[in-house]
Amino acid sequence: MEDFNFCSRTKIVFGRGKENEVGLQVKPFADKVLLHYGGDYLEKNGILDRIVGSLKASGVEPVLFDGVVPNPRLSVVKEGIALCRKEGIGFILAIGGGSAIDSSKAIALGVPYEGDVWDFYTGKAEPETALKVGTILTIPGSGSEMSESSIITNEADDTKYGIDNALIVPEFSILNPEMCFTIPPFFMASGLADILSHQFERYFTPTKFCLFSDHLLEGAMQAVIALAPKILEAPQNYDYCAEFMWLATISHNGVLDAGRQSDWASHRIEHEISALYDITHGAGMAIIFPAWMKHVKSTDLDRFARLGTRVFGIDPNGRSKDEIADLTIKAVADFFASLNLKISLADAKVPTDRFDEMASKALGRSDAIGRFRKLAHDDIVAILKLAV
Amino acid sequence: MEDFNFCSRTKIVFGRGKENEVGLQVKPFADKVLLHYGGDYLEKNGILDRIVGSLKASGVEPVLFDGVVPNPRLSVVKEGIALCRKEGIGFILAIGGGSAIDSSKAIALGVPYEGDVWDFYTGKAEPETALKVGTILTIPGSGSEMSESSIITNEADDTKYGIDNALIVPEFSILNPEMCFTIPPFFMASGLADILSHQFERYFTPTKFCLFSDHLLEGAMQAVIALAPKILEAPQNYDYCAEFMWLATISHNGVLDAGRQSDWASHRIEHEISALYDITHGAGMAIIFPAWMKHVKSTDLDRFARLGTRVFGIDPNGRSKDEIADLTIKAVADFFASLNLKISLADAKVPTDRFDEMASKALGRSDAIGRFRKLAHDDIVAILKLAV
Repeated sequence: MEDFNFCSRTKIVFGRGKENEVGLQVKPFADKVLLHYGGDYLEKNGILDRIVGSLKASGVEPVLFDGVVPNPRLSVVKEGIALCRKEGIGFILAIGGGSAIDSSKAIALGVPYEGDVWDFYTGKAEPETALKVGTILTIPGSGSEMSESSIITNEADDTKYGIDNALIVPEFSILNPEMCFTIPPFFMASGLADILSHQFERYFTPTKFCLFSDHLLEGAMQAVIALAPKILEAPQNYDYCAEFMWLATISHNGVLDAGRQSDWASHRIEHEISALYDITHGAGMAIIFPAWMKHVKSTDLDRFARLGTRVFGIDPNGRSKDEIADLTIKAVADFFASLNLKISLADAKVPTDRFDEMASKALGRSDAIGRFRKLAHDDIVAILKLAV
Repeated sequence: MEDFNFCSRTKIVFGRGKENEVGLQVKPFADKVLLHYGGDYLEKNGILDRIVGSLKASGVEPVLFDGVVPNPRLSVVKEGIALCRKEGIGFILAIGGGSAIDSSKAIALGVPYEGDVWDFYTGKAEPETALKVGTILTIPGSGSEMSESSIITNEADDTKYGIDNALIVPEFSILNPEMCFTIPPFFMASGLADILSHQFERYFTPTKFCLFSDHLLEGAMQAVIALAPKILEAPQNYDYCAEFMWLATISHNGVLDAGRQSDWASHRIEHEISALYDITHGAGMAIIFPAWMKHVKSTDLDRFARLGTRVFGIDPNGRSKDEIADLTIKAVADFFASLNLKISLADAKVPTDRFDEMASKALGRSDAIGRFRKLAHDDIVAILKLAV
């Protein structure tokens, strides 16, 4: 096991109607709060009204800031920073999924910083302080409601970069599974793919002995696979939505990979697809992960065989490790296909003429990405070709 | 899934030699700290010297308070409270296992309270404030290093009661797996039994649908069962000790049972054995759990069958659920026996003449204990008889 520090301070408030308590949660932090969200479903469903009502009842003044889109944009972040400064905002409340939360975290970093907030994402500067953030999660998958991550797209040059910093771990996150009842099937499927991909990134590790977290991750993956057909069949079943929501959170809050290195190369590669072609992140992961697996399979056949036998129910009898690994990769792709997600770039109508550019951007200023297997420029291009 | 709040704020500092950083961890909280511990191994191994050195290097004055024993005593707690008041102590540092930590939490509750600290344990009063606590874990098992629990024995009337309160969640816990190298085999085995019993208490639930946490708990139980023979064979293997330590912490910090009710009747019953006969808690759990299982088996045969097939590798083919449940209970007892623990009261030389008194004390002021199956006085006596 590797040395690690672990602290997961986000207060989770989980259950039916819990968004009605948001005023009580925000009040200790600020008297004036930015509500950052996107889409009209919050207004149509009356959710926004209830949130505003709860805040006002606790003596908190809400300032509305609509405009979040999937793959959240730097331009919107900058608009939010300006609004916070103008209004004297003391706390950011994100309402939505990963995009709203990541955008809110970026605003929280930018408000007290004199320079360009993008500096934090390109690594040019390190944040020293940030406004505090809370969330009301409506679209699970990203895990951003309990994570220290924020990923933003800069439309100016089609780059998509992330930051990990304890300053932006949410103070609280309100998780009401009823919010999932109105998630369209495609976004539900993308969320499931995102959750499984967060688990894969952690499962594929160069750390040699991690008995407990291997078992935890396998349990979590089994849960996604067991839940997926149930929730796609009955998307308004409260119990299924509750499991979906909690799976998303726990799979990305650091508890499943404490003491082991994670990979994250597939995420870096997918971000370039999302940045150029505005693909939903989870849907992009469903395309990239099987291709990544094919490319890196030989690095640790035992790991692939273990995944196949313990999580995907592949019978190892009479099969070589190589055969089991191939069946495992096929099972992963089949699972994503069972969610009605595209599993090739061609099916997703992603052109093949900018792979070199994507590889360069995925690498950023590094020579290689990934920890299970270090990937150089040519590896990334090869993976993108395998994804066609 | 049940509604829940979850917050796990303890900062975990995990790795080789991390106790040497304790001064940096304590300094933000206080300039004068009580070091509460027991046994002479800390002095013999030079651990105490290094801790004192780290504190002094950070400008923190340590006040030593030895005297913790297994099943920590109220009299020692009261002595510690008096010492803290006399010395103007601002922070309690527990060094040891569950006993040192639980005793430290009790002192932390008692210092700012004008009444008798035992009031909090009998439920006569609710704490409003407490000193803050940090821990250096040397004997894993209890999970107290990240939990809100403290359990204390009152020698005056042989009662053992616990309190659960967010005030006493440790601010930090330093986990150096090397500390496990010198744990005697019996205490290692008791720790493993305690961890598994914490998982069982959570697994046996009346909550109807908890797909994800079932899978997580099964993964955690599989990990204990896989680890036990390895670590008993090679107790100074760093990797095994690291898994042992982290398993103990995660199995009792609330993450594995968020959204599900836990049982805890077996723990209540075992506490009465420990209180009267000074049995080590984990060793007592190895005796009580198989007996409890026999008594409550019919409540939910499916749950027992699932445990047996998914965790203990029992082949369900051609067997009734009742047969699978019986084999599961036998497998549990066999596992505890494989740790060289006694699995009957007779073997542990516990007399059989005070079962009525133990049942009454276990009930306390309730009519029944347990949530998977509510146990009245006669049930508890029946379980104790099954444990003979």
